[in-house]
Amino acid sequence: MTREFHWKVRVYYEDTDCGGVVYHAGYLRFMERARTEWLRALGFHQDQMRGEHNLVFIVTAMDIQFTRPGRLDDELTVSVLLEEVRGASMVLEQQVVRDSDQTVLCSARVRAACVDPGDFRPRRLPKAIVSEMNA
Amino acid sequence: MTREFHWKVRVYYEDTDCGGVVYHAGYLRFMERARTEWLRALGFHQDQMRGEHNLVFIVTAMDIQFTRPGRLDDELTVSVLLEEVRGASMVLEQQVVRDSDQTVLCSARVRAACVDPGDFRPRRLPKAIVSEMNA
Amino acid sequence: MTREFHWKVRVYYEDTDCGGVVYHAGYLRFMERARTEWLRALGFHQDQMRGEHNLVFIVTAMDIQFTRPGRLDDELTVSVLLEEVRGASMVLEQQVVRDSDQTVLCSARVRAACVDPGDFRPRRLPKAIVSEMNA
Amino acid sequence: MTREFHWKVRVYYEDTDCGGVVYHAGYLRFMERARTEWLRALGFHQDQMRGEHNLVFIVTAMDIQFTRPGRLDDELTVSVLLEEVRGASMVLEQQVVRDSDQTVLCSARVRAACVDPGDFRPRRLPKAIVSEMNA
Repeated sequence: MTREFHWKVRVYYEDTDCGGVVYHAGYLRFMERARTEWLRALGFHQDQMRGEHNLVFIVTAMDIQFTRPGRLDDELTVSVLLEEVRGASMVLEQQVVRDSDQTVLCSARVRAACVDPGDFRPRRLPKAIVSEMNA
Repeated sequence: MTREFHWKVRVYYEDTDCGGVVYHAGYLRFMERARTEWLRALGFHQDQMRGEHNLVFIVTAMDIQFTRPGRLDDELTVSVLLEEVRGASMVLEQQVVRDSDQTVLCSARVRAACVDPGDFRPRRLPKAIVSEMNA
Repeated sequence: MTREFHWKVRVYYEDTDCGGVVYHAGYLRFMERARTEWLRALGFHQDQMRGEHNLVFIVTAMDIQFTRPGRLDDELTVSVLLEEVRGASMVLEQQVVRDSDQTVLCSARVRAACVDPGDFRPRRLPKAIVSEMNA
Repeated sequence: MTREFHWKVRVYYEDTDCGGVVYHAGYLRFMERARTEWLRALGFHQDQMRGEHNLVFIVTAMDIQFTRPGRLDDELTVSVLLEEVRGASMVLEQQVVRDSDQTVLCSARVRAACVDPGDFRPRRLPKAIVSEMNA
């Protein structure tokens, strides 16, 4: 629960808006990529989790601060830090930092739940996953 | 096969990029909204088509010209004109026109296919749909 | 400060993901459309605000709950309720509700700031805008 | 003009739709990332080109075939092959191939133009860029 995971993201035209900066919803995509790669690094692929375990992770709440504007061509590092995992849900702390000057562009507290992909009801996280997350 | 369908779209920040104009892939989203509303106007909802007929439409090819840049707040009219429908596929002509000055921003020839949502194999278009399209 | 603004949004393929539901970041796009139309209804177009007043609104923080999944073809109503406006910033309450069953899919407390589009420094909201917002 | 450039892309939830596959407009984003990285590999950053040379590249036409559906977690390789560069425009051949089975998911002939970012008028490609492209 103490290891922070990092994932690199580059800002392309698709991520920006006519204000000249990264469109605010784009940071949610970046943070989701980092969570996906964090799970993959722990050995859990989203498609396998769906196929073998019949479960998916969904975001249930986010408390986000957009602190500084990101720009085209910026190289960003997105962090994932597991703060709590209990039952069907977990809380993660995430940050998006610009590599060139270490400016924090965006930070968020993300609550995610493990659900059945059919009815979206909460499903207790498999022990194998929890123990990998806590390792 | 001769009636042209029209659908209004507004350009928001989400549709633009830091070049100050509509991001090129955004026009594909606008054209897909118009096709969906054209089908809905003919009486075919995409979710019902999936549920009752077990079929979905997918785009198989597009020949697109991006002729002029669209901008934030522009009101656009997206047209759909069925050119041909045969077997499992159809060809549509679509244009994206800015209302204020009737400038054509984007035009495309779109080939779509009717497929089984499970295996993506071609499925002959139901006669009810073809006859509505040709009415 | 008491009038709630509403804006209709339709869910298209572009808004969904392979979980079969609306992609979570999509709700931020829907909420931004509603804020833009709320400003437009008050008489303030984002492109004019930029051109004449040299100011843009940016989102600085969001506290969001994703409560129920939205689906393809859903008709949604997005609300905007101004809670507070002071200096260069304002706080809005927003909800995304499915029309068919009045289910709340998403709700958020959104903090936005008025900034100079050049350097992104806070700019006091023009009195004309504040008085329209409070009318 | 003979060297093919390759760029790796991963499919995330953001790229898919409720049909269970990559949303068709998503391939345009993937192809634009590869073109940006191709230019970067040649020594031309889009933000520098805008700042120093006062020019941007825009896509003016695409002829695309969506041949097979991509899926969540797929690893893709996007290619860029310059076919022609003349005056203010260039023609590129691009493919999106799934790494696991070498299936071509999407292929396109892309016409791009070099324009002034202010008025979007064509600007002859700087010789330094053309010679790097042809090297």
